[in-house]
Amino acid sequence: MVIGGNPGGMAAISQARKGKPDLDVVVIEKGSWTSYAACGIPFVVGGEIDGIERLVARSVEQHRATGTDVRIRHEATTIDLEQQEVEVRDLDGGESFRLGYDQLLVATGGQPVRPPLPGIDLPFVHGVQTLDDGKELLDKAVSHALGRVAVVGAGYIGLEIAEAFCHRGALATVIDQADQPMTTLDPDIAGLVTAAMIHRGLDVRLGVSVEGFEPGKVLTSEGEVEADLVILGIGTGPRAELAAAAGLETGAKGAIVVDDRQRTSVDGVWAAGDCCVARHQVTGELVHMPLGTYANRMSRVAGINIGGGDARFPGVLGTAITRLCELELARTGLSTHEAERAGFDVATASVKSLTRAGYYPGAAPMTVKLIYDNPSGRVLGGQIAGGQGAGKRIDVVATAITAGMTVEQVLDLDLSYAPPFGGVWDPVLVAARSAVSDRSSSAGASR
Amino acid sequence: MVIGGNPGGMAAISQARKGKPDLDVVVIEKGSWTSYAACGIPFVVGGEIDGIERLVARSVEQHRATGTDVRIRHEATTIDLEQQEVEVRDLDGGESFRLGYDQLLVATGGQPVRPPLPGIDLPFVHGVQTLDDGKELLDKAVSHALGRVAVVGAGYIGLEIAEAFCHRGALATVIDQADQPMTTLDPDIAGLVTAAMIHRGLDVRLGVSVEGFEPGKVLTSEGEVEADLVILGIGTGPRAELAAAAGLETGAKGAIVVDDRQRTSVDGVWAAGDCCVARHQVTGELVHMPLGTYANRMSRVAGINIGGGDARFPGVLGTAITRLCELELARTGLSTHEAERAGFDVATASVKSLTRAGYYPGAAPMTVKLIYDNPSGRVLGGQIAGGQGAGKRIDVVATAITAGMTVEQVLDLDLSYAPPFGGVWDPVLVAARSAVSDRSSSAGASR
Repeated sequence: MVIGGNPGGMAAISQARKGKPDLDVVVIEKGSWTSYAACGIPFVVGGEIDGIERLVARSVEQHRATGTDVRIRHEATTIDLEQQEVEVRDLDGGESFRLGYDQLLVATGGQPVRPPLPGIDLPFVHGVQTLDDGKELLDKAVSHALGRVAVVGAGYIGLEIAEAFCHRGALATVIDQADQPMTTLDPDIAGLVTAAMIHRGLDVRLGVSVEGFEPGKVLTSEGEVEADLVILGIGTGPRAELAAAAGLETGAKGAIVVDDRQRTSVDGVWAAGDCCVARHQVTGELVHMPLGTYANRMSRVAGINIGGGDARFPGVLGTAITRLCELELARTGLSTHEAERAGFDVATASVKSLTRAGYYPGAAPMTVKLIYDNPSGRVLGGQIAGGQGAGKRIDVVATAITAGMTVEQVLDLDLSYAPPFGGVWDPVLVAARSAVSDRSSSAGASR
Repeated sequence: MVIGGNPGGMAAISQARKGKPDLDVVVIEKGSWTSYAACGIPFVVGGEIDGIERLVARSVEQHRATGTDVRIRHEATTIDLEQQEVEVRDLDGGESFRLGYDQLLVATGGQPVRPPLPGIDLPFVHGVQTLDDGKELLDKAVSHALGRVAVVGAGYIGLEIAEAFCHRGALATVIDQADQPMTTLDPDIAGLVTAAMIHRGLDVRLGVSVEGFEPGKVLTSEGEVEADLVILGIGTGPRAELAAAAGLETGAKGAIVVDDRQRTSVDGVWAAGDCCVARHQVTGELVHMPLGTYANRMSRVAGINIGGGDARFPGVLGTAITRLCELELARTGLSTHEAERAGFDVATASVKSLTRAGYYPGAAPMTVKLIYDNPSGRVLGGQIAGGQGAGKRIDVVATAITAGMTVEQVLDLDLSYAPPFGGVWDPVLVAARSAVSDRSSSAGASR
């Protein structure tokens, strides 16, 4: 049995069947969709992608055609670990029943963080998590009546959805209590995001706390903000209450604790996706990091293991990318703050460079920042902001971190070059060169 | 003394001065320019870059302003290693004189391969190597009289220049005796290049040998090809006759032999750039691989060492990228053929994927091929062809090769994902997954 028709649940099924072709699989899904890419929702709302259905990689019918018993609009309400049964409620019919399992995969996903503020349950306050949420927001976005949208939280999702509404002609205000957007970025890189948002015409209110909601407005520490629609982008927490109530062990942020084979604390029960923890590759800590890449990967690992194989989830670096207001943004590993908190002796190198050779048309500015440890020189993290072609360069930094490379070793990498793609020294190498130069001059100074 | 005003020579100077601020530097340059990016020439000829001067990173005047004695239009004709002197001829004045040196950096660069064919010295047969070549070609490209251009050799430079002339409205024919373009690519990937070239309107003649030239035509094994202009793109050899005549040791393709500190066989004499060899990181062999990235890097290494420091050139993987007829092409490490010749038990995985999420507008096809060793799984090479955003992904493969990763380790990499940049599984991961799957099924079969 799989609880959750999202990629965290569904990707496991075909893997499990490779090992055990005769497996009977039943999927319990509260919403109306399966195997969808929730990360595409802002682009549908903004109109870049035509129709919410396009985000569905594999429909309910396609899953059923492979012999999977998919029950949409059904909610798992209790897991009985003792009896190996799950209580399920038919959301349309209303009746409840119990289903047995031999192996259970919990893939209940994530849910928007909803602080207990006055008015947060008003109908004009929305989350962005499921395709059903997406469909509602799309209806609002194309409605002519929409004038003002307030987004609470200036993280990836909040900013993406704010830009999407901006694109639809709404006046979008973004409110965050932090004094920078995207707190997974260092303040200097985040400052580039703020500038791009303001340039795009977003009303950005940083260092402002939301205190509650009343129809038509958001109450903040700096006065009222008018809004026809409010979207919560404060972050995604694990949807793990069901698992916790059943007695499965939970950890960081209340997420389900799993090992690297995606096993929970109870034999025969597995978990994958935004509902569970993952091990950070640099700090070794168990963290909650809800990203689509991990959900798919964890689900694959769970599926292989359920099918009798032996797969292991490699852990997370927190590599992420987005495009906001024409700016590509990417990060991996630890931020400066995270690295300091983890006890490293942190140094950074930040360089401004170009996405193409300086003489090539369309060359746009880009910034690369490397975060590394002293005196070892080991790379701990990286952040990039810039024009087209800037962001995916983060993957080199992610690969270097996994390989345990030092900034000296990064500088020695043989990266590709041609004028339409950058200068003779790739911006990642320019950053490494700056770090190496800082290190050799400080070594000189300490002699 | 530096022989060669190209990046292979000039990048060393500022590095050397960091260690030895009072260094007297004289540069002997045969042509009229310094510190230019020859790789930009096809884009100037094609009109994407406005003016040949834009390729100059640092002009003669700028170098002179830092105290460097730059002698352009001067040719070094003899190196006297015994006396530590170089005989120099003033190409405009005509007189020759001798200059002494304490340290000599030979950066004579590369030269187009010119097979001894009848008519190869006719004035309508051109190379693409120096800015002076580029200027001549640009003059031709903008001339209204230009009708037919024949390019001999379907390597990077040949194809780039053919496309450039095509862009200017000329009828361009590309002739190569191999039955694929770009022989550093595997035949299947090269086939995508051929298709793109034909689609672009280039006349492509593969498996055709050039037998000679007569005014207005190229003589081939398959008849005559009319041409107002012929461009040689057969490859770049080292320009190392001067060094060889002086008695410096030469190796692969006649290039100057250097160690990883860029020292030649003679004390106090250094070499950097397209004129010298480099060690291949995978095979360990000394090879001649004339790429701008290496020239800059070698020059930096030579400069640091001349200045009394200790820098080492890390060797080459052969990472290269280009954009041809809307197709991004990139490669690194060994091709299948090269890997077989080097004695590896070679396997490959090739997958078709997309540059963006399938539902995201502008998603274009891309192919990733990984070349790896069995049974170790170690990645030996990679090749990519595809739409915008495809090519730079090769840098992840290059980093993985340098780190000695297996396909299993590549599959475990935490690469960035968002819909405008790809699917949840980056195409490089999809290729690794295919390799891992091939390996586990063949392991099963052999049980």
